[in-house]
Amino acid sequence: MPQTSLPDKWGAVTIVGVGLIGGSVGKALCQRQLAERVIGVGRQQEELELAQQQGVIHEWTCSLAQGVSRADLVVVCVPVDQIAPCISEAAKHMPLGSLITDVGSTKRNIISALEGKLPRHVEYVPGHPLAGSEKSGARHAQADLFHQRRVILTPTAQNTPRGLARARAFWTALGAEVLEMSAEEHDRMAAAISHLPHVLAASLVLATPAQWLVFAASGFRDTTRVAAGDAQLWAAILQANCDAVQQSLHEWERELLRFRRLLETGDGRGLREWLAQAQQVRHALGSGNPSDRT
Amino acid sequence: MPQTSLPDKWGAVTIVGVGLIGGSVGKALCQRQLAERVIGVGRQQEELELAQQQGVIHEWTCSLAQGVSRADLVVVCVPVDQIAPCISEAAKHMPLGSLITDVGSTKRNIISALEGKLPRHVEYVPGHPLAGSEKSGARHAQADLFHQRRVILTPTAQNTPRGLARARAFWTALGAEVLEMSAEEHDRMAAAISHLPHVLAASLVLATPAQWLVFAASGFRDTTRVAAGDAQLWAAILQANCDAVQQSLHEWERELLRFRRLLETGDGRGLREWLAQAQQVRHALGSGNPSDRT
Repeated sequence: MPQTSLPDKWGAVTIVGVGLIGGSVGKALCQRQLAERVIGVGRQQEELELAQQQGVIHEWTCSLAQGVSRADLVVVCVPVDQIAPCISEAAKHMPLGSLITDVGSTKRNIISALEGKLPRHVEYVPGHPLAGSEKSGARHAQADLFHQRRVILTPTAQNTPRGLARARAFWTALGAEVLEMSAEEHDRMAAAISHLPHVLAASLVLATPAQWLVFAASGFRDTTRVAAGDAQLWAAILQANCDAVQQSLHEWERELLRFRRLLETGDGRGLREWLAQAQQVRHALGSGNPSDRT
Repeated sequence: MPQTSLPDKWGAVTIVGVGLIGGSVGKALCQRQLAERVIGVGRQQEELELAQQQGVIHEWTCSLAQGVSRADLVVVCVPVDQIAPCISEAAKHMPLGSLITDVGSTKRNIISALEGKLPRHVEYVPGHPLAGSEKSGARHAQADLFHQRRVILTPTAQNTPRGLARARAFWTALGAEVLEMSAEEHDRMAAAISHLPHVLAASLVLATPAQWLVFAASGFRDTTRVAAGDAQLWAAILQANCDAVQQSLHEWERELLRFRRLLETGDGRGLREWLAQAQQVRHALGSGNPSDRT
């Protein structure tokens, strides 16, 4: 089957939810001139005006129906518990042949909520850029947030080669490396590398007596940095991915139990080997230098 | 009691163990011209020669007895399980009225091992600078490693006001803020803000399936950064502080259990509050910006 040609430039791209991620998508589109119009849809007029002033979007509206009515592409960047209703509503007003994607950190909950509920004239490609920050809001938007970052697409049974190719081209144009996996694998992976670390960081912060927090050096600060992330967003993520988070927690506890036994039995050699294995794996991951921080 | 006057500059300062910490002490002393001679004592001639070439020490020897024989101050920077024997041996060869301190991350084990075993002509002031790095070796030495960092002194029953004042003056001259607390409190604090985070980071690295590690973004990298630290050093620290680490682990597990219950029971409001509390505490800690990383 010959590959359908893809546009070098999009017509109108509508971003629903102009926060850190949505704002960074917009800023990248504007700066790279990848779209004729970038339209922001949100609730807070002041935030949207600020985003427009800062070159994150070209125009904005508080009406979802109006904002998506001319869009070739809609990128939904609202919290994970609001994505499915948002897509469902947006699709009713989108033009024939238009595409809708999202940036949600969980995928199964969104896909299953939308199953059989989307009109045929619109294609939804589930996505998740593996980039973020403990900061929030369009004022922290970075045009290079997706540069050299991975974006996961989790195709559904309804997706077409053309729809997937368009979604892939979109993220590639923002500098990302695009991969595909099943929504199930995505959610287990996200639980392991993102959701569980957040839980550990938050619980560590809360378990540390206040009078000792003042002594926290760079190690503690790094280990707990993600815990400064938005509580509302994270609560929604952890609830949406509840079973996979529990599974990750369970697997990680087995590893912690290994440590406890080594410590309790005074097995110095075993402890050194356990730590050396972690040191080796973490070292191979690379430093994650400051320019890599988002 | 009138304060005994303290020297603005030390005569000979001997650093035993010229690694990252010892090397950074030496580099700071040399650059700030705080000592007439900075003598390095170690085992690896090549490392010591390199340290000398890089302005970390003025001279070096592999003989502990020789290296400390003219020292006004000896700073012991070897792994925590080697500190007590090293101090014990060094004290035999140190001049009358000289001071010895250390940088060990645990304090009770060292103090109790030395109890009643030091000659009267030498004073040992236990110390711990709250600064470090997952890097090791004198080649990563930083003259500003202790700048605006805290150094904890844990006085013993044998310490004199003059000995404590000299130790305090030493670290203050390196740019640190010096505090005193009991060895018991220090060890519990260190377990909570440093040793437990290391255990969580290492176990998280080991529990993460290898095929998903490639997807680790900055959040995972930050959360696990400390796990790249030297396994030998960390095994010795965790063993030396075993009871306090177990206690910290226990207290932290109570916090994790709170989370599990909120997740299992689908208590969205409770989960948001739990995360919001962590967000607030972590936010108040400050960002730990790159210049703060050591």
